[in-house]
Amino acid sequence: MASSLFFTHSHCYSSSSTSSFVFRIHRQLGVTPTSLRFSSSYVASVAAMAMDSSAKVIDGKAVAKQIRDEITAEVSRMREATGVIPGLAVILVGDRKDSATYVRNKKKACESVGINSLEANLPEDSTEEEVLNYISGYNDDPSVHGILVQLPLPSHMNEQSILNAVRIEKDVDGFHPLNIGRLAMRGRDPLFVPCTPKGCIELLHRYNVSVKGKRAVVIGRSNIVGMPAALLLQREDATVSIVHSRTSNPEEITRQADIIISAVGKPNMVRGSWIKPGAVIIDVGINPVEDPNSSRGYKLVGDVCYEEAIKVASAVTPVPGGVGPMTIAMLLQNTLISAKRVHNFE
Amino acid sequence: MASSLFFTHSHCYSSSSTSSFVFRIHRQLGVTPTSLRFSSSYVASVAAMAMDSSAKVIDGKAVAKQIRDEITAEVSRMREATGVIPGLAVILVGDRKDSATYVRNKKKACESVGINSLEANLPEDSTEEEVLNYISGYNDDPSVHGILVQLPLPSHMNEQSILNAVRIEKDVDGFHPLNIGRLAMRGRDPLFVPCTPKGCIELLHRYNVSVKGKRAVVIGRSNIVGMPAALLLQREDATVSIVHSRTSNPEEITRQADIIISAVGKPNMVRGSWIKPGAVIIDVGINPVEDPNSSRGYKLVGDVCYEEAIKVASAVTPVPGGVGPMTIAMLLQNTLISAKRVHNFE
Repeated sequence: MASSLFFTHSHCYSSSSTSSFVFRIHRQLGVTPTSLRFSSSYVASVAAMAMDSSAKVIDGKAVAKQIRDEITAEVSRMREATGVIPGLAVILVGDRKDSATYVRNKKKACESVGINSLEANLPEDSTEEEVLNYISGYNDDPSVHGILVQLPLPSHMNEQSILNAVRIEKDVDGFHPLNIGRLAMRGRDPLFVPCTPKGCIELLHRYNVSVKGKRAVVIGRSNIVGMPAALLLQREDATVSIVHSRTSNPEEITRQADIIISAVGKPNMVRGSWIKPGAVIIDVGINPVEDPNSSRGYKLVGDVCYEEAIKVASAVTPVPGGVGPMTIAMLLQNTLISAKRVHNFE
Repeated sequence: MASSLFFTHSHCYSSSSTSSFVFRIHRQLGVTPTSLRFSSSYVASVAAMAMDSSAKVIDGKAVAKQIRDEITAEVSRMREATGVIPGLAVILVGDRKDSATYVRNKKKACESVGINSLEANLPEDSTEEEVLNYISGYNDDPSVHGILVQLPLPSHMNEQSILNAVRIEKDVDGFHPLNIGRLAMRGRDPLFVPCTPKGCIELLHRYNVSVKGKRAVVIGRSNIVGMPAALLLQREDATVSIVHSRTSNPEEITRQADIIISAVGKPNMVRGSWIKPGAVIIDVGINPVEDPNSSRGYKLVGDVCYEEAIKVASAVTPVPGGVGPMTIAMLLQNTLISAKRVHNFE
């Protein structure tokens, strides 16, 4: 029973992990609350897919593609009706290669759906004031509907005070405490829902997984995934438990869940024995593990031991190709929602 | 297994409840985060009490009294050192008898610890603007460190916009979404913690109940008790599940808990069979049930069937005399904390 939560299992793929970058990745990306639904025929087809015992894979890539198509159509409809084009500004400080890649991907994603993307590249040795000046400029710029500060920031900067400078109406990341508070409260609504957890719930919706009254276990309690994911599940009337590094019997509790969302960044931690037969699993982890067969020397695996999970669960997200593509789709969606809100366009 | 959560049990005291006023009561009162600890000898004595099999009762009245004594000493120390007296302003609109009683009790409680109490009594037919004017006045008044709007407000007023007008630095109720968001987030701290849930946790602390790594079940998910109580337990590294009206097997989940906090307002809902032997129970419910033997025609009982609980649990709060007295003590504590913060007094 009392196993340690953060033990890295060495079976089920190799798992001598290099440092996990799951959370770094989340921070770069983005999702939104309501609107945007698939056609009923699409829902029926993915639901059928999910029920087919040979097709338990929740295809995040396909769903994200569908959402981006919907966004493309909405952006175009809005532009024709109002002349307004949604705009997303990304601020990148320093020259970390991974950060540059994330920013480039966001830029490309924006372009692909017709959202304007603005970018500020500041040198590593910029002052906090210089970054704040850019934020202030974007705050006041009516063509910018979402502002994203690429993390991590150089260590000489105060991340919290920089993030707090982003106007809440443009906080498409949804990490402002005021948004999180509204997310937690009944009868209140956040302006934006954090992208990765919203992407998880969106996958459940698009695959017709019923949440109401279900037991849900969220593994991990980070500000950017675990905690908001738990709040979202609770808003949809699931009975939610949060399992974390101090939980003494994570396996036992997880095994009670009809829905598991795992976001801890530990390769293959959730084994088949943790899973109730028929559960639905959303695996947020994106963990690099050594792989001599790969030209890169590593491959990506989730928090969940996929090989084992696929035999027990009714549906599982793969890694890669599960939650990952959803996050950036949700960022685009948040930007669109922001623009619609400002211009009262429905 | 699948019992309905909100069935009112007719055994274990009579329970033909008149409408529960548990939440009304919470809203009137108040608790704070750190500071204020009992002397180690006191802690030892209550801990010993808790361990004595004949003394499983968590005496909220005694703990609240102790806290009020501590506040009295602190208020006096602050006044002597700085000349500042903490002040709490209460706004009462209309002439509901119960509200008037709550306000009078708060006034008395303030006086008993040396906190200044200010009161605005507005007629039932006041406009929202008139109420907002009072709030604005108290917001700007440096002698006021906490502002409380007595709920419920007359139905022609927008409760949310009135509550939102209270400056967050004076929101001693701790219900502002920004406070709740900070409460939910790791690495952030709320300015004020809502009084009733903070009172629950304070009882656990004062009785030396360890929370870290424990299974905790919160029954009820209200904005003012259940949800913030769950966030507080989570901040202290408990593994938390929230059980609510849509939970299909509340009994089964509750029975897993080392710590139960119940805040639903259903008389005697939690039976002995819901309780794991040795669990600690904090009962927030204050429910009136008919009692022909009482001159008032009713008596107060909790959400938990006390007679049964006392045989199974290691410690239980009684109703009345458990959480109730803590709430108002915590309101006084929040007011003191606010005054200390403004004046940089430690």
